[in-house]
Amino acid sequence: MKRYETPTSNGDIVLSTRVRLARNLKDYPFPARLGVEDREAVNNLVKDALLTDENRDSFDYIPMQTLTPVQAVSLAEKHLISPEFASDSAGRALILAKDEDVSIMLNEEDHVRIQVIYPGLALEDAYARAEAFDKALEQKAAIAFDERLGYLTQCPTNLGTGLRASVMLHLPALAQGGTMRRLSSTIAKLGLTIRGALGDGTRAVGDIFQLSNQVTLGISETAAIQNLNAIALQIIAQEKNARAALLKDDVFIDRIWRAYGILKSAHMLSCSEMTDLVSLVRLGAAEGILDIPLETLNRLLVEMQPATINVAEGRRCTAAERDVIRAKAVKDALA
Amino acid sequence: MKRYETPTSNGDIVLSTRVRLARNLKDYPFPARLGVEDREAVNNLVKDALLTDENRDSFDYIPMQTLTPVQAVSLAEKHLISPEFASDSAGRALILAKDEDVSIMLNEEDHVRIQVIYPGLALEDAYARAEAFDKALEQKAAIAFDERLGYLTQCPTNLGTGLRASVMLHLPALAQGGTMRRLSSTIAKLGLTIRGALGDGTRAVGDIFQLSNQVTLGISETAAIQNLNAIALQIIAQEKNARAALLKDDVFIDRIWRAYGILKSAHMLSCSEMTDLVSLVRLGAAEGILDIPLETLNRLLVEMQPATINVAEGRRCTAAERDVIRAKAVKDALA
Repeated sequence: MKRYETPTSNGDIVLSTRVRLARNLKDYPFPARLGVEDREAVNNLVKDALLTDENRDSFDYIPMQTLTPVQAVSLAEKHLISPEFASDSAGRALILAKDEDVSIMLNEEDHVRIQVIYPGLALEDAYARAEAFDKALEQKAAIAFDERLGYLTQCPTNLGTGLRASVMLHLPALAQGGTMRRLSSTIAKLGLTIRGALGDGTRAVGDIFQLSNQVTLGISETAAIQNLNAIALQIIAQEKNARAALLKDDVFIDRIWRAYGILKSAHMLSCSEMTDLVSLVRLGAAEGILDIPLETLNRLLVEMQPATINVAEGRRCTAAERDVIRAKAVKDALA
Repeated sequence: MKRYETPTSNGDIVLSTRVRLARNLKDYPFPARLGVEDREAVNNLVKDALLTDENRDSFDYIPMQTLTPVQAVSLAEKHLISPEFASDSAGRALILAKDEDVSIMLNEEDHVRIQVIYPGLALEDAYARAEAFDKALEQKAAIAFDERLGYLTQCPTNLGTGLRASVMLHLPALAQGGTMRRLSSTIAKLGLTIRGALGDGTRAVGDIFQLSNQVTLGISETAAIQNLNAIALQIIAQEKNARAALLKDDVFIDRIWRAYGILKSAHMLSCSEMTDLVSLVRLGAAEGILDIPLETLNRLLVEMQPATINVAEGRRCTAAERDVIRAKAVKDALA
């Protein structure tokens, strides 16, 4: 998949960049107020607008009802669709790039949610790609747009640009130093938010954080992207400094090696334990302590999630079975 | 060294067997009441009695004053001498087999302490070897012996046979099951004692226990050896049963693999952590889960002790330096 295989900008700290545009068709009520038939009309209209003779072979058009619940949850684990989109399939469809760098949800909260995921820090590229789909859509369909407000969306938090951009950051050194809380409140004042991307919210599993913009009204798309990019670069610089300090500590280096040893040896690994251990090993790999491609570790973080393992196995495994499958896959990946 | 390299009886559970005979010369007061000159007379008398033209090349005669304190402590770590013997060198000497399976302390608490260490369970062989030295001594020197009491020793707890025999047992499954306390009190009733062989007494580091006889009066050497052997075999059988049950638990198997992973990866290992991890790995190796020679692990347990590392390095390392040296040696041994 493109999202972890391509050479990346700031790949030592940035796992991926995500840009999402929310758009609605002028001539239809928001999806919540649409019956299945109308939703399908929207799906077809958007599909015909976005899939052309040139790009059709690179995409799959997937009515969500054709997926099993486990397949849908796996797509959510990979951030290709929202958890809400996975939970109800009626009249919903997904346009998914074969290399999974573009996913377009049809009849999620809005009629169209164009999403681009790129590896590393690539906000402008990802935005440009999303914008190209947006332009293609506007050429074929009347979009709900207000001169004063901008793009109209079901939820007012998306009103205006309809743009949500985020950067997935690996911040083990900042998290270790306990500076995330302070960083988080500083960032809130700048109209952005940073939060643990994995886990149940009580802690940031694997020290992986998502930085995203919050303001969509009264700001241009370009300004929003530039703003987010500037803050991301500042956090990256802070993490680099914190890593340099942390890696002078032999005890911490030893923790990295032990994490590597456990990943290579354990016969059972829960998803959260694996994520925490991969986080340490990824830091070691990024800093030249361990000779492991970051892509391998990025891939494990995505593919070793529960539903994604179930999909790969073609059945609903128990958690205990998955822990064994996960441990073996991790061992093989690091061999 | 013979003590861990030879094929052994019950080597999966028994690390080593030790037999020690305490003897005193009739014509000299006990060492505590001897000046350095008389002690040296005793040393020379015993050396001439025990070292012959046939065996002289296999032994070193070591006046303890020629050793550095670290070298002496290393010998104590290997159980070749007592800690007390290491602590004061005046007028003391050691006859040490080059392969370290025989060590004879001169002017410890008694004039002569003949000790044989063999790998695995080998009480009768070890006793026979010690007895041969005892016979050689008796042919050349008058031994303090009382018709009614038996061999006379400084401490009344050794009076009679002067025999102390012990078996070093690796009992991870019994220790895991929490049955050691009950086992210990049963064994006390049989005139034996079992206690953690490593650590500060608060817990048995590495689940390694020493089973030894306590009674020296009113029992023959042969009976004492047979008695100890019978109890050792019973404990071995119990440990085997407990292992069979324990190894049905996948979570425990996973602990073994993780211990192996940490030993192969850590860059710092304290002695007690290493011992605990080697204990788990040794169980895995003994039960066919890991393909590692038990000798390798037995050797690590002996040679990775602090003073023994200092001797190998030829200097007094700090604990932190030793932890790094130990981790590297363990990694190399398991590579």
